[in-house]
Amino acid sequence: MTGYRELKQQCYQANMLLPELDLVIYTFGNVSAVDRSQEVFAIKPSGVPYDQLTVDDMVIVDFNNNVLEGEMQPSSDTKTHAYLYKEWASIGGISHTHATYSVAWAQSQKDIPILGTTHADHLTEDIPCAPPMEDKLIEEDYERMTGQQIIDCFTSRNLDHREVEMILLGNHGPFTWGSTAAKAVYNSKVLEELARMAYLTMQINPSAPRLKEALINKHYLRKHGKGAYYGQKPSEGAND
Amino acid sequence: MTGYRELKQQCYQANMLLPELDLVIYTFGNVSAVDRSQEVFAIKPSGVPYDQLTVDDMVIVDFNNNVLEGEMQPSSDTKTHAYLYKEWASIGGISHTHATYSVAWAQSQKDIPILGTTHADHLTEDIPCAPPMEDKLIEEDYERMTGQQIIDCFTSRNLDHREVEMILLGNHGPFTWGSTAAKAVYNSKVLEELARMAYLTMQINPSAPRLKEALINKHYLRKHGKGAYYGQKPSEGAND
Amino acid sequence: MTGYRELKQQCYQANMLLPELDLVIYTFGNVSAVDRSQEVFAIKPSGVPYDQLTVDDMVIVDFNNNVLEGEMQPSSDTKTHAYLYKEWASIGGISHTHATYSVAWAQSQKDIPILGTTHADHLTEDIPCAPPMEDKLIEEDYERMTGQQIIDCFTSRNLDHREVEMILLGNHGPFTWGSTAAKAVYNSKVLEELARMAYLTMQINPSAPRLKEALINKHYLRKHGKGAYYGQKPSEGAND
Amino acid sequence: MTGYRELKQQCYQANMLLPELDLVIYTFGNVSAVDRSQEVFAIKPSGVPYDQLTVDDMVIVDFNNNVLEGEMQPSSDTKTHAYLYKEWASIGGISHTHATYSVAWAQSQKDIPILGTTHADHLTEDIPCAPPMEDKLIEEDYERMTGQQIIDCFTSRNLDHREVEMILLGNHGPFTWGSTAAKAVYNSKVLEELARMAYLTMQINPSAPRLKEALINKHYLRKHGKGAYYGQKPSEGAND
Repeated sequence: MTGYRELKQQCYQANMLLPELDLVIYTFGNVSAVDRSQEVFAIKPSGVPYDQLTVDDMVIVDFNNNVLEGEMQPSSDTKTHAYLYKEWASIGGISHTHATYSVAWAQSQKDIPILGTTHADHLTEDIPCAPPMEDKLIEEDYERMTGQQIIDCFTSRNLDHREVEMILLGNHGPFTWGSTAAKAVYNSKVLEELARMAYLTMQINPSAPRLKEALINKHYLRKHGKGAYYGQKPSEGAND
Repeated sequence: MTGYRELKQQCYQANMLLPELDLVIYTFGNVSAVDRSQEVFAIKPSGVPYDQLTVDDMVIVDFNNNVLEGEMQPSSDTKTHAYLYKEWASIGGISHTHATYSVAWAQSQKDIPILGTTHADHLTEDIPCAPPMEDKLIEEDYERMTGQQIIDCFTSRNLDHREVEMILLGNHGPFTWGSTAAKAVYNSKVLEELARMAYLTMQINPSAPRLKEALINKHYLRKHGKGAYYGQKPSEGAND
Repeated sequence: MTGYRELKQQCYQANMLLPELDLVIYTFGNVSAVDRSQEVFAIKPSGVPYDQLTVDDMVIVDFNNNVLEGEMQPSSDTKTHAYLYKEWASIGGISHTHATYSVAWAQSQKDIPILGTTHADHLTEDIPCAPPMEDKLIEEDYERMTGQQIIDCFTSRNLDHREVEMILLGNHGPFTWGSTAAKAVYNSKVLEELARMAYLTMQINPSAPRLKEALINKHYLRKHGKGAYYGQKPSEGAND
Repeated sequence: MTGYRELKQQCYQANMLLPELDLVIYTFGNVSAVDRSQEVFAIKPSGVPYDQLTVDDMVIVDFNNNVLEGEMQPSSDTKTHAYLYKEWASIGGISHTHATYSVAWAQSQKDIPILGTTHADHLTEDIPCAPPMEDKLIEEDYERMTGQQIIDCFTSRNLDHREVEMILLGNHGPFTWGSTAAKAVYNSKVLEELARMAYLTMQINPSAPRLKEALINKHYLRKHGKGAYYGQKPSEGAND
C-alpha cells in the first residue's frame, strides 16, 4: 500500500476536469496536487491522453523534482510546479491548460483588464501577462525558469498570489493555482470565462472603461475576507 | 408540511434551467419565484453549485428580506429581487445570470440596439444598459440599490417593465423577469441570443441600421396584445 | 385514417432536425413539406416548442392558406410557404430558422459573398439578402408579401431558385428550400456554416477576394448536373 | 476474405473521428490510410454521410487511382491522396476537412502565423496557405493538380512535410497528414485549434508578435527529435 493514494486520487480527479470543462484537447495541460506534510506532489504523467489516464498513473515528485513513486515520466512542466510549491507555501494545487481564449490573450501579450463584476468576484487586479523570458533562460533550464518567471512577475508588480490565483505566460498560456487542485482547476475555468468576456467586450467597445474602484471592492469583499456575506459560511470568508 | 412546497419547486426548476441553457457556470446566477397571495418569494441559496441543489434548499423570503423558511443563506442578490417584487406588482419571477454575450454588452456600457425581427418578436425597444451606480450607493446598501437602479433606469427612459422584461446593469450583467420564474429564465436565454446576434451584426456591419418601425410593430404585435395571431391562443395574446 | 400521414411524418421529422442541428431555440423557426399531387403542405403549428411537438400536431394547409386538417393553428409564416409553393413548382420543402450567423448577415443587410469552395459546392452565387419590404406591404399582408419579396428578389437579380436554394430576408433571417423538407433543412444548416465561415474570413481579411470563376464552376459542376462525379450516382447528378 | 480488412478498419475509424471532433458536417471531408507494402490505400466513399458509413464501405485504391476493391465510388478527392502518397513515401494517412477556422484562414489566403507555444509544440513554421491554382490546371485534372499544388508549395518554400504536416489550400480548406490516418486526423484537430487561437489573437492585438526563435526551438525540440523529453518514450522522440 502506498501513502500517496488520496493525493493521487485528488490529482487524478482534478486532471479529469480539464477535458470535461473544455479547457484542453488531447494531452494538453496538467494539474498537480500537493501534500505539504510530506513535501511531495502528485502530477499528471507526460503526454498521456486524458481518456487513458488512471489514478495509478499519477506520479509522485518531491520539491527537488525527484520522482518518488510512479511508473511513468511526470509532466514536462513538473519543474514549474515544484518551483511554485517551494516558493508559495499557501497553495495546494496548480493547473496549466491551453484553453483557447486564455491562450489568445497570452499570445497577444496583454493583461486581461478588469471590466466587470464577474472579474471582481474573483480578484481585484487585471490578470497579469508575464513577458516571454530571455533566450538565455529558455535555453538553460526552461521549465524551472518558467516558475521563476511567474514569481518575478508577481514580485515586480507587487501582486499577492493568495488573491490573484492566475497568470498568463506571454506567448504560452495560463497557469492557475489555489488551496486545492480542484480550486486551481476552478480558477482555470473562471479565467477562461473572464478572457472570453473581456475579448467580446473589447470587440464591442474598444474603449470600454475599467471597472470602478467602488464596484471592484464591493464585489471582491462580499466574497472574500472577514466581511464576506456571499455563500453559506460568511464568517470563514467563502470564496467560491 | 410547508405551505411553500410548490413555490420552492417552481423556483428550483427555473434555477436548474440556467446551467442547462448554458447561461451560468459554477454558482453564478440566481432565480426567484414569487407567491403574491402570501407576499413571499423562493430564491436560490447563496454560493451553492447547481449540481448540488435540491428543492428543499430554496429559501423563502418576504418583501422586507426576512427569511421565513430554509436552512441556508439566500442569494446575496436577495434584496434586489425583493425590491423589484415590491415595486412591480405584475412580475412573477426574476432571473439573474452571467451569460457571456449579455455580460459583454453590459461591460461595454452599451444598449443592445434593435436590429432585427428576432428582437422585435420580444420587445420594441433597445435593451437598456443602466449606468454603474454612484459610489455612495454601492457602499451604502448595494443589493437594494441595484433594485432601485433598475427602477430608475426604467422610469427615466419611460420604459414599461411589462413589455421590456430585461435590463443590463453596466459592468455587471443581465436581470430579466416575467409572469413566472420559467418565463424570466426564457427571457434570459432570449436576451443572450439577441446579444450574440447584435454582436455579430455590428462586427459584420458597424453601421447596420436600426430595424424600421413598421417591422418592429408588425413583429411585436403579431405576438403580443389583442391583435396577436402567433401561437395557439391568439385571443389571449400569447407571448412566447 | 388520414391521407396525410406520411406528409405529416416528413414534416415532423424535418422540424425536429432544427433544434438537433442548433438552428433554433424555443419555438423559433418552422419547416413545411408539400404533396404536389394533392396541392397541400404540412407545416409546424404556431408557437409550439419542439420538445412538445408530435406528428399529429402538423397542420395540413392548401395553397390558398385554408387549413384542411389539424387541431392547431399553423405557423404564423404559413402564407409565405403557400406563396412559394404556388410560385415555384419544383420545390418540395421549405425551412425557416433564426440561426445566429445567418440572422447576423440578414441584420447587416449584406449578401454573403462566395469566398470558398464550401460555398461553391452548393451554389455559384453570393447568397442574396433581400431588402426590407416597404411599410405599406408590411401593414397590408405581411406574411404573403414576404413570399412575394423572395420571388421579387430572385426575379430582379435573375437568380434560379433551383440552384440558389436559400435567401436572407433583410433584418429578419433565412429561408431555404429544396426537393424535400429534409433537403430544405440541410440547406439551412449549410447556409449557417457558410455564414459563419464568411464572417470569420472577413474578420481575418476584410479584403478577402471572391472565389475565382474557374473554382466556382469546378466545384459546383463536380456535384451538380450531367457531368457531376461527386457522390454515388454521378449520372443522376447527386447534389448532397 | 479480403487482405485489406485491417486497412479498411483503420481508415473507417479515422473517418469517424471527423464528426466526433467537430471537424465536418454531413458528407464534408475524407480520410485515407495507406498500406505501403501493397502500395494501396483505403479511402472514404464519395458523398456518404458519416452516420451511414460502415467499414466495408471503404474503397481500396492503388497509387494510379484504380479501384481494387469496394462497391462504392471513392472520394472525389482520391487523386489528391494518391498523388501525395506517391510523392511522400513517409506518410501513412491523409485527412481533409472543412473545419470552420481552418477554412476561414484558407478563404483569407493567409498563412497562419506562429504566435505561441501551442503552435511550436507541433511545428516551427507558419502554416502555409497555398495560392489558388491557375485556371488551366483547374480545368485539366483538378484533383490531381491539387496534389501537385501542395507539393509545389512545400518545394518553393523549402518546407519539410515530415515536420510541417498540414497545409491550407487557398479558398478551399485544410489537408493534413501523418504517420498514420489517426495522426493525420489529430493534425486536422490541432490545426483547427491553432487557427482559432491565431484568429482570436489577431482580433485582440493585430500587431501580435511572432513567437521568438528560442521558444519555437525549445517547444518543438522538447517534443521532437533525439533530445525530446516530452511523453513516455523520449528516446524515440514522441510527438503527440
